[in-house]
Formats: sequence, C-alpha cells, structure tokens
Amino acid sequence: MVDTAQRPAPRSPQKSAAASATSETEKTAATPTTTAVDPSVNTGPIKIAGDPTAPRVDLEQLGRALLGTWADVRLAARKLTAQPELQRIEGQSMAEHRARVREQMQILADNGHVLRAFPTSLGGHDDHGGNIAGFEELVTADPSLQIKGGVQWGLFGAAVLHLGTQKHHDALLPDIMSLKVPGAFAMTEIGHGSDVASIGTTATYDPETEEFVIHTPFKAAWKEYLGNAANDGIAAVVFAQLITQGVNHGVHAFYTPIRDENGDFLPGIGGEDDGLKGGLNGIDNGRLHFTNVRIPRENLLNRYGDVAFDGTYTSSIGSPGRRFFTMLGTLVQGRVSLDGSAVAASALGLTIAITYAGQRRQFTAGSDTDEEVILDYQRHQRRLLPRLATTYAATFAHDEFLVKFDEVFSGKADTDDDRQDLETLAAALKPLSTWHALDTLQEAREACGGAGFIAANRLVGLRADLDVYATFEGDNNVLLQLVAKRLLTDYSKQFAKADAGALARYVVKTAADRAYNGTGLHRLTQNVVDLGSTARSVGALRETALQRELLTDRVESMIATAAGVLRPASKLPKKQAADLFNSQQNELIEAARAHGELLQWEAFTRAVDSTTDAGTKQVLTWLRDLFGLGLIEKHLSWYLINGRLSAQRAAAITAYIDRLIARIRPHAQDLVDAFGYTQDHLRAPISSGAEAERQAEARAYYRDQRASGTAPIDEKATKKHK
Amino acid sequence: MVDTAQRPAPRSPQKSAAASATSETEKTAATPTTTAVDPSVNTGPIKIAGDPTAPRVDLEQLGRALLGTWADVRLAARKLTAQPELQRIEGQSMAEHRARVREQMQILADNGHVLRAFPTSLGGHDDHGGNIAGFEELVTADPSLQIKGGVQWGLFGAAVLHLGTQKHHDALLPDIMSLKVPGAFAMTEIGHGSDVASIGTTATYDPETEEFVIHTPFKAAWKEYLGNAANDGIAAVVFAQLITQGVNHGVHAFYTPIRDENGDFLPGIGGEDDGLKGGLNGIDNGRLHFTNVRIPRENLLNRYGDVAFDGTYTSSIGSPGRRFFTMLGTLVQGRVSLDGSAVAASALGLTIAITYAGQRRQFTAGSDTDEEVILDYQRHQRRLLPRLATTYAATFAHDEFLVKFDEVFSGKADTDDDRQDLETLAAALKPLSTWHALDTLQEAREACGGAGFIAANRLVGLRADLDVYATFEGDNNVLLQLVAKRLLTDYSKQFAKADAGALARYVVKTAADRAYNGTGLHRLTQNVVDLGSTARSVGALRETALQRELLTDRVESMIATAAGVLRPASKLPKKQAADLFNSQQNELIEAARAHGELLQWEAFTRAVDSTTDAGTKQVLTWLRDLFGLGLIEKHLSWYLINGRLSAQRAAAITAYIDRLIARIRPHAQDLVDAFGYTQDHLRAPISSGAEAERQAEARAYYRDQRASGTAPIDEKATKKHK
Repeated sequence: MVDTAQRPAPRSPQKSAAASATSETEKTAATPTTTAVDPSVNTGPIKIAGDPTAPRVDLEQLGRALLGTWADVRLAARKLTAQPELQRIEGQSMAEHRARVREQMQILADNGHVLRAFPTSLGGHDDHGGNIAGFEELVTADPSLQIKGGVQWGLFGAAVLHLGTQKHHDALLPDIMSLKVPGAFAMTEIGHGSDVASIGTTATYDPETEEFVIHTPFKAAWKEYLGNAANDGIAAVVFAQLITQGVNHGVHAFYTPIRDENGDFLPGIGGEDDGLKGGLNGIDNGRLHFTNVRIPRENLLNRYGDVAFDGTYTSSIGSPGRRFFTMLGTLVQGRVSLDGSAVAASALGLTIAITYAGQRRQFTAGSDTDEEVILDYQRHQRRLLPRLATTYAATFAHDEFLVKFDEVFSGKADTDDDRQDLETLAAALKPLSTWHALDTLQEAREACGGAGFIAANRLVGLRADLDVYATFEGDNNVLLQLVAKRLLTDYSKQFAKADAGALARYVVKTAADRAYNGTGLHRLTQNVVDLGSTARSVGALRETALQRELLTDRVESMIATAAGVLRPASKLPKKQAADLFNSQQNELIEAARAHGELLQWEAFTRAVDSTTDAGTKQVLTWLRDLFGLGLIEKHLSWYLINGRLSAQRAAAITAYIDRLIARIRPHAQDLVDAFGYTQDHLRAPISSGAEAERQAEARAYYRDQRASGTAPIDEKATKKHK
Repeated sequence: MVDTAQRPAPRSPQKSAAASATSETEKTAATPTTTAVDPSVNTGPIKIAGDPTAPRVDLEQLGRALLGTWADVRLAARKLTAQPELQRIEGQSMAEHRARVREQMQILADNGHVLRAFPTSLGGHDDHGGNIAGFEELVTADPSLQIKGGVQWGLFGAAVLHLGTQKHHDALLPDIMSLKVPGAFAMTEIGHGSDVASIGTTATYDPETEEFVIHTPFKAAWKEYLGNAANDGIAAVVFAQLITQGVNHGVHAFYTPIRDENGDFLPGIGGEDDGLKGGLNGIDNGRLHFTNVRIPRENLLNRYGDVAFDGTYTSSIGSPGRRFFTMLGTLVQGRVSLDGSAVAASALGLTIAITYAGQRRQFTAGSDTDEEVILDYQRHQRRLLPRLATTYAATFAHDEFLVKFDEVFSGKADTDDDRQDLETLAAALKPLSTWHALDTLQEAREACGGAGFIAANRLVGLRADLDVYATFEGDNNVLLQLVAKRLLTDYSKQFAKADAGALARYVVKTAADRAYNGTGLHRLTQNVVDLGSTARSVGALRETALQRELLTDRVESMIATAAGVLRPASKLPKKQAADLFNSQQNELIEAARAHGELLQWEAFTRAVDSTTDAGTKQVLTWLRDLFGLGLIEKHLSWYLINGRLSAQRAAAITAYIDRLIARIRPHAQDLVDAFGYTQDHLRAPISSGAEAERQAEARAYYRDQRASGTAPIDEKATKKHK
C-alpha cells in the first residue's frame, strides 16, 4: 500500500513561501497540488494539463505500480531511510564516514531489516525477494550503507547460507546476522576480477592434520577491493582452488578467521587498506593475502563439494564447470540488488532535476517580461524525459527480475533452466540499469547547472558512489558477453538438427527477407501504401506489436548474423577460433544490450497492460512509446541498413518522439512524484521548493517596479524612441 | 622543442622489475622501447608491429606536433607540474585542500608562470597564447589549482586588464598579479547562470556623492559559485546593471572591495560558503550579496562605457547589445583554457588506461595457458581507441583555437569578424572537449575496473574535478545554441538578397540533389558502379575529400532545413515565433555539435598534412580516418535517411572502422606516449609498470610449476582421462 502521508515531494514553496509576503503569486504557489502541474509555476509553451479533456495521472495507482510486488517492505524501508541517523553526511572524512556507517550497520542488524533472507529458525523470514527489495532502498540513505550491508549479509553471510550446510548455519550465521562477526567476501583477486575461475589462491588439503592450507602464491592472487577487509572484518569467506590428492577441483569457499580479538591479523595473514576511492568511502575496502594459513577441514563450505578426512573429494555435481556456475549462481542477489538500487538512484536524480526544471526560469523567449521555465525548452525535455521513460522501464523490469529471483531462491521454481534464466536476466539487466544510473545522474547534474555540482544537492555524491556499480559484481561488458553467449547457445539449439544449409538459409532470411514479411512491418508498409497518409502511418509506430517486432527482430538478426560468422569456429584451431570470436565481440555485446532493452520494454508493456485507470494508462502508454521508439531511434541506422524501415518511416520516428515528449511534459512532475520519494529521501535544497520561492520573489520585484513606474528605462528603448 | 629526457612514461616495469628476479621475461620487459610496442608485454591476436614493413611512429616528431605552437611554454609548465609541492594530495579534507591550493597559488605568483598575459610594463609578457598554454598544463598537477589560478588571474585580473583602463591597470594589477589582493569574479547570479544580460544586481549612480550604489534587490540576484568568495577574496569585480539618470545601460563591471584587513566583510556585504562540491574542493567557492554598497565612480571599469561626474553615460560602442558582447568577449580566455585543459585531462586518462590495458591480462582465449592482454579484445579497443582519435582531433583543434585567440588578443588580427569567429570557435569547441573529457575519463575508469575506482589511480578524481567544466564558463548546451544561431545568421546572409523561392530551391537542393552531385559523393557512387569492388569502394571512405564532403554536407543541410522551418518566424507574434524556434532547438544544437566536430576534423587533417615522417603520417592518417568515419558512423542514420549513403556503403563504414582499429592497436602505446606525460604527471600506480610486473610474476609461477611437474592435475583432465 502507498502511504500517501509520505508523499509527494513538495513541488512548490510551502512553509517558507507562506511565511513571506513579497508576492501575490505565492498564495497560489503555496497551495500544494497533487494531481497536476502547478500552473503558477509551470507556464510555458506546451500546456496540455490545463485542458480538461487531457488525461490525468492517478498518483495513488501509479505509485503502487512503481513500488511493485514488495510494496509494503519498500514503504517500511523508506520509513527507515527517512531517519537522519541512517543518512549520509556529505563532506565527512573517510575515517568519519567509515565510523558512521559502522554504527549504522549495527542499527540495521538490531532492527532486523536486513535479515529477511535468513532462515526463520534463526530469526530471519526466509523471504528472499522482500529482503532485496528492502535492501535496495538503503541507497537513498547512503550507498555506502547499502553496499557495506550487502557485503556483510548479502555476500559474506549469504555465502555461508548458500554454500555452507546446516552445521555452518547453526555455528556461524547467528553471529554474522547480529554483526558480532563482521566479515569479508574474499573472492576477487587483483589479477582476476571477472574471471573468478582462474583465481590463484589455493586451498590444499593436508590429510595429516585434516586441515586446508590457504595460500597466496604470487602478488596477482592477493584478494582485492574487499569490503570489511581494511578494518572491521574478523573473518572472511575465502574463495580458492581446492586441491586434494594432487587434483585441482576448482574454486570453493572456505570460512577463514582473519583477525584476533585485538583487531590484529592472525598469523600468516596480511593486508592493506585500499584507501580513498571514487565513492563509497563509508566502506573499508582492502586487500588480503595468505601465507600457508591452516584452517580445519570443516571450514570448507561444503554444500556442493566436500573433502573427507582422508582427502577424498565428492560432489553432488559431476561436471566441474556446472558445479562452479551453480556455486556462483547462489550469489546472484548482489546483481539483483545493484539493479534495483541503480533504478532507485535514477529515480531520485530525476525527481530532483525535473522538479527543479519545472521551477527554474532562464531567458525570455515568448514574452518581454517572463522568463521561460527551463523544462519548457525542447532540449531540456529531450535531456530528461527519455531518461525518465527508461527509468520507468527499468523499474518494471526490476520487479519482474526480483519475482524471478524470489521464485528460484524460495524453491517455487528452481530448475536448472530457471536458474540459468535468472543468471541471464541478471547479466542483461544489471549492466543496463547501472550505466543508466550514471548517465541519468550526470545529465541531472548538468541540467541543474552549478547547483547540481554542489554536494548538498546530492547528485554528484550519488553519481560518485554508483560509479563502481558498473564494474563490480561482474563487469558490465563481461556480463553482456555472457548474455550474448547464452543467446548464441539458444540460437544454435534451434538448429541443432538442421544442416548447415538450413542455417545459412535462415540467416539470409533473417537478414533480408523477413523485414518485409513480418507481421508488424508488413502492416507498416501497408499503411504507407494504402493510405498514403503520414499521420496514419506514423500512428502505426505506437502499436505495441510493431514496436515488439522491431525490437525483437534486431536482437534475433544480430545473433543470427554473428552465429553465421562464428559457425566455422568449431573446426578451427583454438587461436584462430578465438580470433574469429574476437572479431564479433563488439557486435555480440551490442546484441546482448539490445536483448536487455527488449526485456525492459516487455516489462514496461506488461505494466501498461495491467494499468486500469484510463488517464494513467494513456500517459504510461506515451512513456512506453517514448522508451520503445527511443530505442529504435538510437539504433536507427541498423533498421535502415537492414531494410527494416524506409528512410521516410525513420524520419517520422524522430518527429513522433518530439510529439510524445511534448505530450508527456505536462505530466513530468506527476511522473516523478509517483516514485514516492519524500524530501527526507531527496534532501536536495534545489528540489525543496526554494527555487520556486526565489523565482516568485524576483518576478514580484520586477512586476511591482513596472507597476509603480520606478523601473529604469532600458537604453535600447531610449534609442528606439529617438 | 620536445625534451626527450622527460619522456616517455615507462610502458613496462623498469626499476622494480629489474630489481626482482622471479622471471626470465622481465629482462625483456625491463628494456625500454621507444618506437614500438614491447612484444613481451603486448602479445595478442593482432600484431602488425612485428612486421618490419609496418609503419612506425616517430615519437619525437609526433610529440612535437602534439605540444603545438607554444611547445616551450608547455614543457616549462610540465617541469613545474612535475613538482610534488604543486600537486594534489588525494583524500585531503576540504579545509586542508583549500589551504594547500592557497599556498600553491603563491608559488605560481612568485615564479611568474601565470603572469604572461599581463603587460610587459608591469612584469608580464603581453603573451596571451603562451599564457593560456602554460595555464592549461596546471590541470595535471591539480585542477583546483588551475581553476583557482584562472579565477585570480584569468577572470578577476583579466577583467581589470580588459574592461579597465590605464588608471585601473596601474593601480590594481600589480597587487592582483602578486596575489596581495585575491579577488572574486562576481558575474554569475543564482537566478541567472548563462543569461548574464539579465542579472539582477544594480549599480546606480549617485551624482550627489559621485558614487555607484551596488545593490542586490532579491535573493535570485545573489552572486553565486564564485571562487575566492568564501574565504580568500578581499575584492571582487562585480557585474551589475549600470543605471544612471534613470536609464539602464546594461551590464558593466565594477571593482569592489569586499573584505577588510581582518577578513571580515565590509559594511553592506554578506555571503556564504558554497561548501563541499562534486570536485574542485581546493577552491573556496561562495556567494555574495550587496546591500546599498557605495563605491567611488572611478571603480567602474570604464573601457567600453563611462559615467561622467554628473551622471552622463558615454560609450565608444553605440549599440547596447554589441557593447555587451564586446565586453563579455574580452573574457573568452576562460573557455579557451577549459578546452585545452579538458584535452590534457583526456590525454592523461587515456595514457593511464591504454598503458594498463597493454599490460593487464584476463581470460584465456587463444591459448590454454596464456591469458589475453585486455587491449587485444575488440571491445576494449572499441572503448579506448576511438576516444584516443577524438583526443588527437581535440588537441590539434585546440592549438588552432589558441593561435586564433592569440591573434585577436595580441592585436595581430582583431577585427569584429575575427572576434566573432573566436567566440564561435570557443562556443563550439569548449562543449565538445569538456564532454569528451568526462566521457573519456569515465570509460578509462571502467576500462581499469576496480583499480580505476581507487583514488590513487587518479581517474575518478580528475573526472570529479572536470565535471563542472561542462556547465561553467557557459553551459555547454547554451554555448552550442549560440553556435547554431551564428550558423543560421551566416546561412541567411548568403540569401539576404535572394527571394523566398531561391531559398526554398536551395533547401531542396541541399536536402536531396546535392548528395548525388557533390564531388566526393559522386566519386563514391562511381567506385561502386564502375568497379563493382567492395574493397575499392570502401577505400574511397578514407579519402580526405570524401570525409570532408560528408561532414560538411551534414552541417549545412541541418542548418538549411532548420532555416527553412524558421523562415516564417520573423512574421509571427513573439510567442509563436519562440515556440517555432523551440521546436527546432534540439536539432539546431545537434547541428552546432556537428559543426564543432567538423572543425576538429579539419584541424586533425591539417596536422596530418603537415606531418613529414612517412610512418607517423600513415598512423596519424588511420587515426584521423577513425575519427572522421567514427563521426559518420555515429550519425549514420542521418546519412541514410537523407540519401547521402546507401545501406551497403553504410555497412561498409562499420567494417572499415573495425579494420582501422586493428591497424592502430599496435601503435596505441606510442600514440599515448607521444602526449609526453611522465610518471610525475600520471602518478597512477596502475600505469607505472606494476601491472606488467605482477603479470610476469604470475605467469612465471605457473610456467615453473608446469616445468617442474608439481602442478595439480585439473579435475576436468582426470575426467577426460577416464
């Protein structure tokens, strides 16, 4: 349920404007409006909201849709993040910030907010989806808190939960949950970021003492960038190559104490502080290395592989490759929560920038006396509204992703296929949403000019903190390549029994003929031919089926083309096969991105379909069309080169996007208010209403001056007079 | 002259590797190579450097070309910026950083490095171009130092120099130059960033006392974001509407003391500290406001407008509009230096990321044992090499811009047309280079993964500091709109005497016919038709004349189309005319960007033409082609929609870019080394050679293990065996 008492962020000056008495407009401006753009603030060339026949957004319904499946958890989390003691203080030194986040961690541990995923028997709720939904909201308080919490409970604790067995849960989880044992997740090595399978750290079993010997054989195998490693961690889950009886069984996880009760490293363990970072400086990231550190055999987290006292290795999963991916797959929640928190950060940034743009005025254009509201400039709309559409798409896609995650982790639907689909979804969506957040926060910052650069207005801090989301929990480019490989596999499965000729024919058909025979495109051509009307044929572009056809076709064709080029690879020597694959790498990653965009578009479309309020549905449809056609415009040259769109149709897309943006403009404030963040979450003076107040004061000054006849004459006017 | 002793940044481990003895490869790696990629470090799928017939870059010649017209000044400045006492210390608090930059300012004032633009009679050199060239290099020491120096000498001091007259120079400049009087440049108001003509602050002349009364009439007129305002400034050049005898003569500049000897504000003056910002925290930005502050009549900087004791206003420039733009035009050096320092920051970022990418290995692909150097991945090349090409283009364009600036300011060529051209050049190039720097530093950061996020590796700090370059000294979008207006004016001048029909015919011709009749495009069509050979016709794309034709045509056509749409505006009511212009705003800004890109391309082409060494010329030509064709690829849909390129030709461009990138790859290290920055400027551990050392150690470990037969057997191998 949406708690309306918490919303909306005031779009116009309230308390302070009411307390002042400089202008008669302020009385109007001080009246909070919740369903339309305040006309006293937003006068400009495009005004549809004033039209009584124009659609109106039902903020209640839309807000609920955006909150998604775990709305109650999110609202509870937002009550928590509205509390100042959990919020970031801009400008703290690294030491102060670390200390503050450490204290905040204890608040979270004590109130149980972050423990929903743990077993009910241990005080959790076995609620995987809800846990992530609540976690993501922490980003609005301080991304450092979100990520440090993620390290403790989502990585370190989750590794014990998912890779360990009952004995580990009982012995270790209570202290991890309560934060009595802060820990590091020691997977990444300085020499092996994304290629976890190749890490250098070894855990060699010694049957004499029934111990594993954890060892760092060279500097590139130092564990690196680990939260909790520089200071707070007293244990770690260390990932290492498990070697027993002379055989390397691949990467496994080992529970390893690292510091004593005084905070000093245990014998054989060393490390360094990563020091200052580009953001997230509330987290004590650091490096660890191990010199023949002995741990008991039982410290192997043995859910997917075990070593008997005599050194015999056993596993429920025969294939080492599948075992590795299964183990890593249990840790997918990191990517899920990054996707969700990146979307939340984008929503915050746009709420700040769009609210400000609806109040700020600059340059006179259509009037001698009144400056334009900057959101009425076409360029400003082009900068912010398509990003708003993408944020909506990413919000809806994230909720579906979270539902899928919950189904797999709750056991409701956790076949191998489900797990693989979840992995692919994570690898497709996390890159898109994290890059989108950086792009959006930067555009929002620039759209607010110098005010956007002031730390108090939060855009620069959020951007700095979210920067690393693009490369941690899987580098975005590497993740997209994983998606591409999955698409190639799916594609080749379709033709597993077909001969090479059939495949070649398919590729040709996909790359050329299909464009003119597919249902959607056929319809478009017909409109042009039969009706000869630009307006009517442009209208076809907003048909859901046609957008789907165009977006799907591009993914399929790109994959089919690459598959055709790569087909000889299986018969080539390794080096040549690698070179061939490398020649397609960029295109494959672009195909994976197109796939992710299609997933977002499909989720957005389902959200539109399930909207019942007519006005809301109309506005959401425009926004979905803006997203879909924006994707087609972005990749327009592909559609033209591959004969999917004629030059005339292509030109019509850009013109139609301009029209959509003009239609959406009057609803922009509603669309950001619907995210449901209050001033307690935004905490940006520029979107508090102060700007509208300042504008009102300045305009009143000039109006009074004109009315009183005391205004100085403009020199230009004196010249004209002469 | 290039000081070769200062170059190059070591591309492979030197001292530390030589001191170690873990690997036989290090002997090779420790040998510095200056003309080709070190084969021990850069093995990968694409190796042309090993081919004795492949072109080689003459680093000496290329380095000299990149240093540009004021090479000696730049080299002297780089000796200065190599000194630790002028460099940024990452992680300092805002207070510490401000204090450090304040001390560094005095070092600069004392050694005279920053005073070249001031009159020789006062100890300067009257050297405008050299002054900016030297200034820009400060960005490698600390952008805060560059910008705080820019505030003092380039804005505050330059306003006195260019807007004041001899009496002001003699009385004020010596103390400004020596830093005895630190000052603020009080132009921007919180309510009027880019629209300086509309500022609210007034300077009303009182003939009774022969004083100007400086006054802030409302909160939106507070002066904002002023460097030196929060703490250090004891005077300011205040921009205000000059009102005398009841007439407003527009914006003029007034020298105004603001603090007393104790650092307290003088009566009537107040202010606030802007506090923490997204970057540049070594500068004490703040706000100022004035309540009926009286200053002597002589404090008006009266070069372009003066007020006699009785209040009579006189000016050498009759038109208030032209007077305003002339006054602002004298302050263009801010934009010049931002352009140059943004280019320098891009060069630093790429040197770091490309050096690292040539040493770092990740994932095996073409071998069972050797991981690939990441710069050999196609995607990684696609991420970094086109940005390298753009940085070269921006470097050469900046030098031409600086020459133009010097000609205008030295009086060598300073007609009204020259000044307007300079303004347009500034408005076109500064947005492109500052956005490019942010994009490049971000991509460099991500390309270095987690290591890129560590502050010690400098990419995040540079990016944070340069962020605001996109919106200060003219918001980038506003500047591009100025360029577009200039292009529209130039365009309409061509048809000043033509009737509407002639114009319409021109537009039609431009938008359609010309594509098939222009020399370059005609030739392309011929190649396709006559020779029927894809290879030959693709080759035409690298012809200079064809690239120029395609790039020029786009700018002209976009402007012609917009001009056609806007033609009725002059006959419309103001509001409707404004709406019509607004409907074209986005497209006009894109046209301005295309114009700026063309200017960069032309400068790059001239630099290629003036290169004498054959190998260098070949590699530079590839890089110029990558830049030019990259622009065409970016805007490919425009070329397709407007019939300038066939679908086949368009597809060939992407394929040809792939080939160009593969050719440039072996020269990537040379191309960044040629920028000439040493480790003293880079100061990033990841590009120090440490990575190559670490890789060598790890590879030696595994090689020794394999040789000795002690390597554990891979589980997969045991399964295959069975």
